[in-house]
Amino acid sequence: MRLRLEVAYDGTDLSGWAVQPGRRTVQEELETALATVLRVPQARLTCAGRTDAGVHARGQVCHLDVNATVDPIDLRRRVNGVLPADVRVRRCSPAPTGFHARYSAVWRRYAYRVCDDPAAVDPLLRHEVLSWARPLDVASMDAAGSRLAGERDFAAYCRRRVGATTIRTLLELRTRREPRGLVVVRVVADAFCHHMVRALVGALVAVGDGRRPVEWPAQVLTAGVRHPAVTVLPARGLTLEEVGYPPDEALAARAQRARAVRVLST
Amino acid sequence: MRLRLEVAYDGTDLSGWAVQPGRRTVQEELETALATVLRVPQARLTCAGRTDAGVHARGQVCHLDVNATVDPIDLRRRVNGVLPADVRVRRCSPAPTGFHARYSAVWRRYAYRVCDDPAAVDPLLRHEVLSWARPLDVASMDAAGSRLAGERDFAAYCRRRVGATTIRTLLELRTRREPRGLVVVRVVADAFCHHMVRALVGALVAVGDGRRPVEWPAQVLTAGVRHPAVTVLPARGLTLEEVGYPPDEALAARAQRARAVRVLST
Repeated sequence: MRLRLEVAYDGTDLSGWAVQPGRRTVQEELETALATVLRVPQARLTCAGRTDAGVHARGQVCHLDVNATVDPIDLRRRVNGVLPADVRVRRCSPAPTGFHARYSAVWRRYAYRVCDDPAAVDPLLRHEVLSWARPLDVASMDAAGSRLAGERDFAAYCRRRVGATTIRTLLELRTRREPRGLVVVRVVADAFCHHMVRALVGALVAVGDGRRPVEWPAQVLTAGVRHPAVTVLPARGLTLEEVGYPPDEALAARAQRARAVRVLST
Repeated sequence: MRLRLEVAYDGTDLSGWAVQPGRRTVQEELETALATVLRVPQARLTCAGRTDAGVHARGQVCHLDVNATVDPIDLRRRVNGVLPADVRVRRCSPAPTGFHARYSAVWRRYAYRVCDDPAAVDPLLRHEVLSWARPLDVASMDAAGSRLAGERDFAAYCRRRVGATTIRTLLELRTRREPRGLVVVRVVADAFCHHMVRALVGALVAVGDGRRPVEWPAQVLTAGVRHPAVTVLPARGLTLEEVGYPPDEALAARAQRARAVRVLST
């Protein structure tokens, strides 16, 4: 039996998703809690997007294979009783046939939040908002971002890994100012390479505070190599908000295709 | 010269507003930072509402008298540079004539936030939201609260202090469910006695989860004595959102009146 879990976490005190010896990670907290509640020696989770240290999530999705039949609602309640307060299982349900948390996913949506009025940072939101000392022009950030959409080679915005493709389809890169004043960059792509969101938003912020022209992020993309002026912004502003899946009947086919294309890009 | 400051804080790691030896308090953090930046031996603040340990604020107002002429914008910037991240000065301006942060205020608005779906608590909001294990009926909480409005003796909902009146004017006590599912109780009064908001919301929650009928909170009020079933809810869900002042020309008269009525109710 495969279970589908939706997970949220405050990444502030966590060293990212993937297990690392001697560090608190989301995967380890969840797998330990699940193994305890299920009374099994080990529970292995697969997630849709492995987040870096300090990155948050509201809609991380993962799956878990269990031998026995499990009541998902009861499991959720008991796991949350064991988990520390910065990690929560928000939903738990039987996975539809063919579902794979990582390979069935068709898009991932992230939000990066910036407050450009340092005095107005809400202390209650400080863990998920980056404070920026210069005022940001949201319209030019939005215009710069719209020029990056499409299927492109994002090598200029990625940390290279040997044998891994850097071609991704960027579905949306929009910048808006919320009513309470926060600048929110919304990024949707089929998948992301390492550091890609934080580097993209770093380039947009350089446009927003006037250091670079609107065309610059697209020029960097076309050049295809890392530009020293592209800053990878701190993790604290970044949240994995949602993961999108196709209709149930298309899950297995999607997983097969994604695995074929991206099995080397881990 | 009198300055008017608007202050926000995450109360989680603070022992409330008022200075207490050996503890981190909002007042001490602010007064120390202001004294450092102003290069004076001591800076003394007066606030609109002294919050308890663990209570948050987005719109606390206080005033400070300074001898020299000060640039408020520059002072705000420099104080925020010295303050810890959980306390921020969000606005700083010269106070209008007759302004007194406490005695000029005509109302205080608090919000108490509850999540009644324990699995759905957003870990990024956990510091300012109380988790409640039973589902809450918002309509009956709202109906129960509306019966408490008006100028009344709130002795049943206050921690008694010798010589202090417990008569207050409750202007609003409304319960709503936000789009993302949080239950928010909005409480506005001319002033509050000690523990009053947390006790009022405690009574409403007893109605909301079905333990008490809609009429009960008003019956407790009329009885005039503490009822053992009225729980003072934890501080974490409570935030001082805003303080209201009259038009500038009425500030001094208001301060004089309030001081006469409430000087004993400290």
